[in-house]
Amino acid sequence: MSEEREKATFDVRELTYFLDGGEKFTKIREKFMMELERDPTFRMYDMYDVTKDQIRERTMEKFRTIVHYVSAEPVPIFTMRMQTISLIDPGFWTRFGVHYGLFFGALRGSATSAQFSHWVSKGALALNGMVGCFAMTELGHGSNVAGLETTATFDEASDQFIIHTPTITATKWWIGGAAHTATHTVVFAQLIVRGKRYGTKSFVVQLRDTRTYTLMPGINIGDIGKKMGRDGIDNGWIQFTNVRIPRTNMLMKHTKVSRAGEVKEPPMAQLTYGALIQGRVAMVVDSGNIAKKAVTIAGRYAAVRRQFQSSPHDVQETKLIDYAIHQYRLMPLLAQAYAFHFTGVETQKLYDNLMDKLESTQPGDASMQDTLDTLKETHATSAGLKAFCTWSTLNAIEACRQTLGGHGYSAYTGLATTYNDFAVHCTWEGDNTILTLQSGRYLVSCYREALAGKAQPEGVSYLNHLDTLLNLGCGAKTNEDILNFDIIQEAWGVVTANVVKKAGDDFEVSLKAGMSPEAAYEECSQARLAAAKIHSFGYIFRRFAQAVKSAPEGLRPILTKVCFLYGLYSIEQNAGFFLQYRYFTPSQMDFVRAQVNVFCREVRQEYIPLIDAFNYSDYMINSPLGVYDGNVYEKYFDQVKRQNPVGGEHPYLPLIQSLLRRDIEDDEPLEDDEEDEE
Amino acid sequence: MSEEREKATFDVRELTYFLDGGEKFTKIREKFMMELERDPTFRMYDMYDVTKDQIRERTMEKFRTIVHYVSAEPVPIFTMRMQTISLIDPGFWTRFGVHYGLFFGALRGSATSAQFSHWVSKGALALNGMVGCFAMTELGHGSNVAGLETTATFDEASDQFIIHTPTITATKWWIGGAAHTATHTVVFAQLIVRGKRYGTKSFVVQLRDTRTYTLMPGINIGDIGKKMGRDGIDNGWIQFTNVRIPRTNMLMKHTKVSRAGEVKEPPMAQLTYGALIQGRVAMVVDSGNIAKKAVTIAGRYAAVRRQFQSSPHDVQETKLIDYAIHQYRLMPLLAQAYAFHFTGVETQKLYDNLMDKLESTQPGDASMQDTLDTLKETHATSAGLKAFCTWSTLNAIEACRQTLGGHGYSAYTGLATTYNDFAVHCTWEGDNTILTLQSGRYLVSCYREALAGKAQPEGVSYLNHLDTLLNLGCGAKTNEDILNFDIIQEAWGVVTANVVKKAGDDFEVSLKAGMSPEAAYEECSQARLAAAKIHSFGYIFRRFAQAVKSAPEGLRPILTKVCFLYGLYSIEQNAGFFLQYRYFTPSQMDFVRAQVNVFCREVRQEYIPLIDAFNYSDYMINSPLGVYDGNVYEKYFDQVKRQNPVGGEHPYLPLIQSLLRRDIEDDEPLEDDEEDEE
Repeated sequence: MSEEREKATFDVRELTYFLDGGEKFTKIREKFMMELERDPTFRMYDMYDVTKDQIRERTMEKFRTIVHYVSAEPVPIFTMRMQTISLIDPGFWTRFGVHYGLFFGALRGSATSAQFSHWVSKGALALNGMVGCFAMTELGHGSNVAGLETTATFDEASDQFIIHTPTITATKWWIGGAAHTATHTVVFAQLIVRGKRYGTKSFVVQLRDTRTYTLMPGINIGDIGKKMGRDGIDNGWIQFTNVRIPRTNMLMKHTKVSRAGEVKEPPMAQLTYGALIQGRVAMVVDSGNIAKKAVTIAGRYAAVRRQFQSSPHDVQETKLIDYAIHQYRLMPLLAQAYAFHFTGVETQKLYDNLMDKLESTQPGDASMQDTLDTLKETHATSAGLKAFCTWSTLNAIEACRQTLGGHGYSAYTGLATTYNDFAVHCTWEGDNTILTLQSGRYLVSCYREALAGKAQPEGVSYLNHLDTLLNLGCGAKTNEDILNFDIIQEAWGVVTANVVKKAGDDFEVSLKAGMSPEAAYEECSQARLAAAKIHSFGYIFRRFAQAVKSAPEGLRPILTKVCFLYGLYSIEQNAGFFLQYRYFTPSQMDFVRAQVNVFCREVRQEYIPLIDAFNYSDYMINSPLGVYDGNVYEKYFDQVKRQNPVGGEHPYLPLIQSLLRRDIEDDEPLEDDEEDEE
Repeated sequence: MSEEREKATFDVRELTYFLDGGEKFTKIREKFMMELERDPTFRMYDMYDVTKDQIRERTMEKFRTIVHYVSAEPVPIFTMRMQTISLIDPGFWTRFGVHYGLFFGALRGSATSAQFSHWVSKGALALNGMVGCFAMTELGHGSNVAGLETTATFDEASDQFIIHTPTITATKWWIGGAAHTATHTVVFAQLIVRGKRYGTKSFVVQLRDTRTYTLMPGINIGDIGKKMGRDGIDNGWIQFTNVRIPRTNMLMKHTKVSRAGEVKEPPMAQLTYGALIQGRVAMVVDSGNIAKKAVTIAGRYAAVRRQFQSSPHDVQETKLIDYAIHQYRLMPLLAQAYAFHFTGVETQKLYDNLMDKLESTQPGDASMQDTLDTLKETHATSAGLKAFCTWSTLNAIEACRQTLGGHGYSAYTGLATTYNDFAVHCTWEGDNTILTLQSGRYLVSCYREALAGKAQPEGVSYLNHLDTLLNLGCGAKTNEDILNFDIIQEAWGVVTANVVKKAGDDFEVSLKAGMSPEAAYEECSQARLAAAKIHSFGYIFRRFAQAVKSAPEGLRPILTKVCFLYGLYSIEQNAGFFLQYRYFTPSQMDFVRAQVNVFCREVRQEYIPLIDAFNYSDYMINSPLGVYDGNVYEKYFDQVKRQNPVGGEHPYLPLIQSLLRRDIEDDEPLEDDEEDEE
């Protein structure tokens, strides 16, 4: 390891500061890591062996050691704390997020200020007296919120809503925290007033007595049980049977229902979308963080593990990382982790900017159109990136796990659990396929606007030069010219423009054939999916290249190499499109392939310092194969013995004894004297 | 569902017979499924909730209900029984396979006939009196068997071998059945006689007293503990400290050590490779079977689940499977499952043919060269296919899991566990990357032989027409001409020839530059990896197309469609190579892409009957989302409630009560009288 560390041509600490956004933030993160490591409820060494019930109980214990920071720390700092926690205990992060992100977030986003104050006074902020969950999804209904079946019928006589689950498929399902924790929920239900349906709105419903935890009348709750991962969160199902709540429990910031049963709908329904974006941005950031963790484990192990001799003259076996193929497996994933890191930072900025605009704009303001455009762009961008980054990171975790060989199958080496915990990101808070299609739909609409002459925002700025791009030959005169950020960016621009054009043209053809816009969008779904995917590659490369340009001078050479690797590897993986649209010739593509190997070798030289710069402590990594000092075998063996002590009682001795002594115990057939004549 | 079943244009039962190899075999499989379902130790409904200790105990119980079939049933029939079991309980399949496939297989393959009889008389076949495990892998050594550290030193004085673990990295690791089950092991160790090393050989060592299960002197064993999946098998680690065994416990079919310490090495070491192939063939077959199971679950759910309206005029929400994008996600996976099924059948035949030849050929026979060629081909083919099929199937399981949306994250819907159980196939019995490189190495050597004029076997027959293929333009004059098995086969032939040529040429260049063959192979690893992957696609398409041609007439139309979908989708996924080598033009590639959609729609018409033909009972599928009658929600809800009964005690009531009542219980600060002046 020290031999690998000596290879650094840059200051590792400086890179850490750059990644974290400054020394100050590095110090804060280090403080968080240390605080977690000290907290006995956050002990990690036995986490791979605890049962579902144990981990749920422990998750509950953790609330107490964290909850006071909610009010004591400024939001951005507390967000950093939670990001740190999500790296080692995604189950807790989810359970905490269910209350603060979803339940409390719904209050903040959809309650009037009087309603908000009321629930804060009941303990919703301090988590003192109540704890909430978020009842949106139903057994038969997920992404299509408008299709939910649960009803909220206004009863004018009593000034109450009646919340009801009419069918089995209307059962609220997957509700995090519902099984055993929540006393209250925000429930999404079809608002019905005087027999008329007004669509899905949200209502606060009490589920349990806050002292005895017995269920309230009309409430039926059960445990969803075992999951692929994140067992720390007690997902449950809920059925409502004519549950009555005061009218004022409907969250009325947007739609209002008066005492007399008059329904007033909001002027701009789009403004409520903001709430969905936060979770997606968090998952983009989480993708970068988890990708870094996976690469740290796989990368450090590859510097220690030796296997075969690459030359018959070698005395020792060769380090995994010195094989070309291992470099090809790992170095692009390292580059991708850097790319996703910078993408996460920029996506967070995009979101913060949107929130500023939303808070400072009122309906009727002159700046309203600009705010709506920003909302539309941020919504589509975060949707596309959430899908792209979570998919890619899930694949990266599995690829890293497999580079550990057989040891990747051990729970203690960490990546199996990481995979199982992370996988949910691909389907929750917007299924990835649906989000990608939405992003593709946005691209088609931008393309059509651009054709009509409307300038497009930065994220899709390539659409502002459609005529040029669609007719552009490759800007590289020699092969070496390809090794230039501007050329790579142009290459992605040209290819993306073509792929988006394909989707847009398919859409146009369907429209002209008389289809409805919905049917036309459906018809071009595969083209939309491809467009969104290719767009994301180009978008992320731009974010990465931009970050490299803004890096301190001493870091630029190494980051430039990593960025080239990301760009060239991504082109290689999508070679079909670059050849299809003739941006690169087959011989240029051969050059790109060869350069991927060259940059794998280059990045390999300093890959351990590049990993060290992520600055995760051994506690955070929680894998003996990823320890900083490289003493992997001893720590792995220790971990296995600690969790599975030698000796002790045999778990099924009588069973195996009776199996191996069947001659004695089994029924012998009665001997047949007639045949037994000897 | 019945509406979907009515769409069949073929006889589903006839297709099942065709897949199974005849009505007779279908009946046998159905008998096995029924027998398993009846066996209480094979109850499956609670399998997603059992702990590691419980599942290990239950696995042990199952031995008793299965073991007598080993001697009662002919090998091919018993193999079918085990294939059936592996579908529902891969953990048991592994534990059983450790004894019969690995331990007993090693005896059969490496023991002399006298040794073999001896161990059979001790109960190795009947599993009565002893049970074995297979101690090859070490903590620091996996795929490189030659690099193992454990030693077996001959002590002439006592006529014994001393088995010893010299370092921590030499600890035997991952040994299935070692933790609690095995009484004996076959251990791989470096043979040392009179100070000279003879490489890795195998030895039988007793680990435990067969009655009391106490460890034998010098043996130290521990439990490897929690894994990603297959917790039914008790993997362990073993350390040997100067353990003495009789000389005759060395398996001496090949290498022999005499009483006087003379070592006689076998004339043809290659002949021992045969043993490795069996496991790989089993995994190719398992890939097809598990792929069919995953597609059954995802496919049936997609016919029931409804989401959004694809047109505003629809009354009901639209079935998932009626969305173009859902067809694009699922139909190619269905086609791949068929492709892998037929590939498995053919690979099994290849293996059986090899075994026949190996048994009938003696060193010195005229047919020896032919047998060695067959061995080489079967070895490389099974290595490449094991890697390709297990990787593709693992991805297919995850892709199917994600098509279930949020429900895919529930343990009860089955695919999460299937993923975790299956994942080990990618790294054990030959890590997939290493196997793929071996397969690429074989292709390079075949290419060089072909250049030198030597005729190549069927699997790489395209290399026999190198000159033609490398200069061949696309045989399709019109776009429609592409829809022809011969053209698709030719397309793969041309592209594979080019990719193999690239690897071969890179190898040649390195050789000419003075590198050793080893170094030259290392230099072209990425090209070898690509060559092996592309080769596999073409190989599998040929197997599928062949099977379609041999199918009964009534089945040919539907199977032709499924085969086209597999071929065209595979081309689309590898578009870069087809454009790179100019077999297809960009506009032909657009046609291929469009046809993928067309065939997705076509296959979708009869996809439920195509799934029904796999003929897995609901018990075998073990997922409420994949039930035959389509009553998914009710069965899913029932399963969740059965495993997590409503009511009962709250698992952490005091904890949550104290959290929510902090105002009462927490220390209040002492009031400061000076400031309290009101």
